[in-house]
Amino acid sequence: MTSRPLLALIPGEPAGVGPELTVRALQTALPADVLVLADRQTLHHAAAALHLPLELREVTAADPSQWEAALQWAREQAARAVICPLVQERETIAGQVDPHNAAAVINALNLGSDLALAGQVQGLVTGPTHKHVLKQAGFDYSGTTEWLAQRAGTSVVMMLAHSRLRVALQTTHLPLRAVADAITAESMERTLRITHLALQRGFGIANPRLLILGLNPHAGEQGDMGDEELRVFAPVIAKLRAEGMVLSDPLPADTAFLPKKLQQWDAVIAAYHDQGLPVLKYSGFAEAVNITLGLPYPRVAVDHGTALDIAWRGVADLGSFAQAIKQCAQMAMHRRQ
Amino acid sequence: MTSRPLLALIPGEPAGVGPELTVRALQTALPADVLVLADRQTLHHAAAALHLPLELREVTAADPSQWEAALQWAREQAARAVICPLVQERETIAGQVDPHNAAAVINALNLGSDLALAGQVQGLVTGPTHKHVLKQAGFDYSGTTEWLAQRAGTSVVMMLAHSRLRVALQTTHLPLRAVADAITAESMERTLRITHLALQRGFGIANPRLLILGLNPHAGEQGDMGDEELRVFAPVIAKLRAEGMVLSDPLPADTAFLPKKLQQWDAVIAAYHDQGLPVLKYSGFAEAVNITLGLPYPRVAVDHGTALDIAWRGVADLGSFAQAIKQCAQMAMHRRQ
Repeated sequence: MTSRPLLALIPGEPAGVGPELTVRALQTALPADVLVLADRQTLHHAAAALHLPLELREVTAADPSQWEAALQWAREQAARAVICPLVQERETIAGQVDPHNAAAVINALNLGSDLALAGQVQGLVTGPTHKHVLKQAGFDYSGTTEWLAQRAGTSVVMMLAHSRLRVALQTTHLPLRAVADAITAESMERTLRITHLALQRGFGIANPRLLILGLNPHAGEQGDMGDEELRVFAPVIAKLRAEGMVLSDPLPADTAFLPKKLQQWDAVIAAYHDQGLPVLKYSGFAEAVNITLGLPYPRVAVDHGTALDIAWRGVADLGSFAQAIKQCAQMAMHRRQ
Repeated sequence: MTSRPLLALIPGEPAGVGPELTVRALQTALPADVLVLADRQTLHHAAAALHLPLELREVTAADPSQWEAALQWAREQAARAVICPLVQERETIAGQVDPHNAAAVINALNLGSDLALAGQVQGLVTGPTHKHVLKQAGFDYSGTTEWLAQRAGTSVVMMLAHSRLRVALQTTHLPLRAVADAITAESMERTLRITHLALQRGFGIANPRLLILGLNPHAGEQGDMGDEELRVFAPVIAKLRAEGMVLSDPLPADTAFLPKKLQQWDAVIAAYHDQGLPVLKYSGFAEAVNITLGLPYPRVAVDHGTALDIAWRGVADLGSFAQAIKQCAQMAMHRRQ
C-alpha cells in the first residue's frame, strides 16, 4: 500500500465548473490518490469540451479489494482516474442545471460520507453544489457541510483558509439580526473546542492559539456597545483557558487582521460570516478553501460556487479546487501521525 | 492670498500621540497652511521630547486679519506653525490622561468647528481624542464626529478611506443586535444622498458609483437569509436610481472587496462597522483616514487611537496623520471648484 492518502473527490453540480475542475486537476500531479464519485459520461463530456485527455477505470464501492490495482494504474500516468460511477438520469448540459440529475449529486455525497466514515477513504474533497436545484428536486438540503454533519451525527465548524490566514465562524448562514442570540456560552464553547481539536489533529499544531473576535464593534468597548463580550464570551474564555487552551480576549475585528498581529495566532474565530470572510477572500480568494472541522474525517471544499456562466470553458480558476485537494491530503497525513 | 487652503489642525488628546504627530508633521512640507488649535506648552514639550525644532507664533481666533502675516512667516521655513492657543489647566504628562485637561480639548474642537462653519478655515484635521477622559470630565461626548455633527446641526456619514478603497458606513458604533433595526429606508436614503453629494463636492467625482453591501450574509440570498435587502434596500435603491444615482444591487460582503470588482466603484457602502472596516484596515492601515461626510466643511481624522503607551517616543506611525492633512487639503481644493 502506498503512503499517499486516498481521497474521495466529488465534483458536485454537473452543469457547473466542478467536472471541468476535476478533469483539469487530473492532468496534474496530485498529492493524493483519488476516487472520483460522479457520473462517468459527464466527466468524459467535460474533458472533450476542454480538449483534454481522460481515462477512467470503474470500481465498485462495495469491493475495496479491487481499488489498489486500479489506483496503481491511475498513478502510472496523468489524466487517468478511478471512478465509482453515480449514474445521472439525464445528460449534463454545461451551464444548465437539471433537477433530474440532483439524485446523482446527493448519492455521491452520501457515498463519500459512508466511505469516509468507514475509513475506506481518508478524506473528502467536494466541488460546488447548487442548493436551489437540489431543493427543487425535493432534497432537504441547506448545504454540503450541513448534509455531511447530519450523516456523521456531529457538530461542525466552518473554517475558511488560505496559506496565510484561517478564519473559523461561530455562526454561518443566519440573518444578521439572528446572530447575537445564536451565540450562547454553549455554542461558543463547542466552536472553540472543535476548532482547537481540529487544529491539533488535522494541522499538527500542538497548542493552537485562537484569536477571538468580539461580536460588537470595538469588541463592545467594555460594555459601551453591547455586553455579549462580557456576558457570554469572557466566561467561556476563562473556563477554557483554565484547561490550557490559548485564547485571546475578544478583540475588535477591524484591527485584528493586521498582518503583524495575525502572525501570533493560528486561527481567527469570527462571530459571524461577514465579520470574518471579507478579509479572508480579499487576501487570498483564488487559493482559499472551505474546511469542515468536527467531522470524523478531513473534508475540504472549494470556496466558490458553481459558476454556471463559465462552466466547461476552461477559464475557471483551478486554484481553490487544487488547493482543496492539497489541503485535504495534508490533513489526512496529519491524522495518521 | 495664497492658493493653498487653510486648515485647522487639532492634535486631540494631549497625553497621546497627537502632539507628537503634529510636531513631526510640521517638520515636513505640508500641502496646506495650518492653524494649530492646542496648548502651546504641550507642543513645545513634545518637540523637546523628540529633539525636534519648533517655533510657534500666536494669533487670536477673533482677529483673522492677523493671520496672513503669521502664516507667511510659517511658510518660510519648516518647523514653524501658527497657533491659536487653548490653555490647559495642568501640564501634560505623556501617556497619562488627565481630566483637568479635557476642557482644552473640547475648546479646540469647538473653536475648530466655529472657524470652519464661518469659513475662516477651509477644513478641519483632528488627531485622536480619548473618549473616556472626556466623559470622566463631564462632557457628553461620544466621539469627535458626533460632536462636530451636533454643532453643525447636520446628519453625517463616516467614511474610512485610503488611496485604493473608500468605505462609508450606514451604521457606526451600535451593538450588533441593534444594527438591523437601525437601517431604515429613511436612514439609508440619507446615507446614500450624503455620500453621493460628498463624493461630488469633496472628491470631484461627477457621478459617483456606489457599491452597496447587503445586510445579511450572501446579501440575504433572495430572502433565504434575511429579507432586509428586498424589503428595505431594494426600494431605496430603485428610488435613487430613478434620480440618476449609480448604485449597485445589495451585494454579498465576502466577495464584494475583490480588487477587480472594486475598480468599477468609487465607494463601498457597508451596512455596519465590522462588515466594512476589517478589509479597509487590512489593506491600508498605515495610510487610512476617517472622513466625515455631510458637514458643511471637509473634516478628516486619523484612523487610530491615542496610543498612550507609545506617546512622544517618536515611534508612532505618521502615515494616517500626514494623509489626513493631505486628504483634507484635497477636499478643500475640490470644494473651491
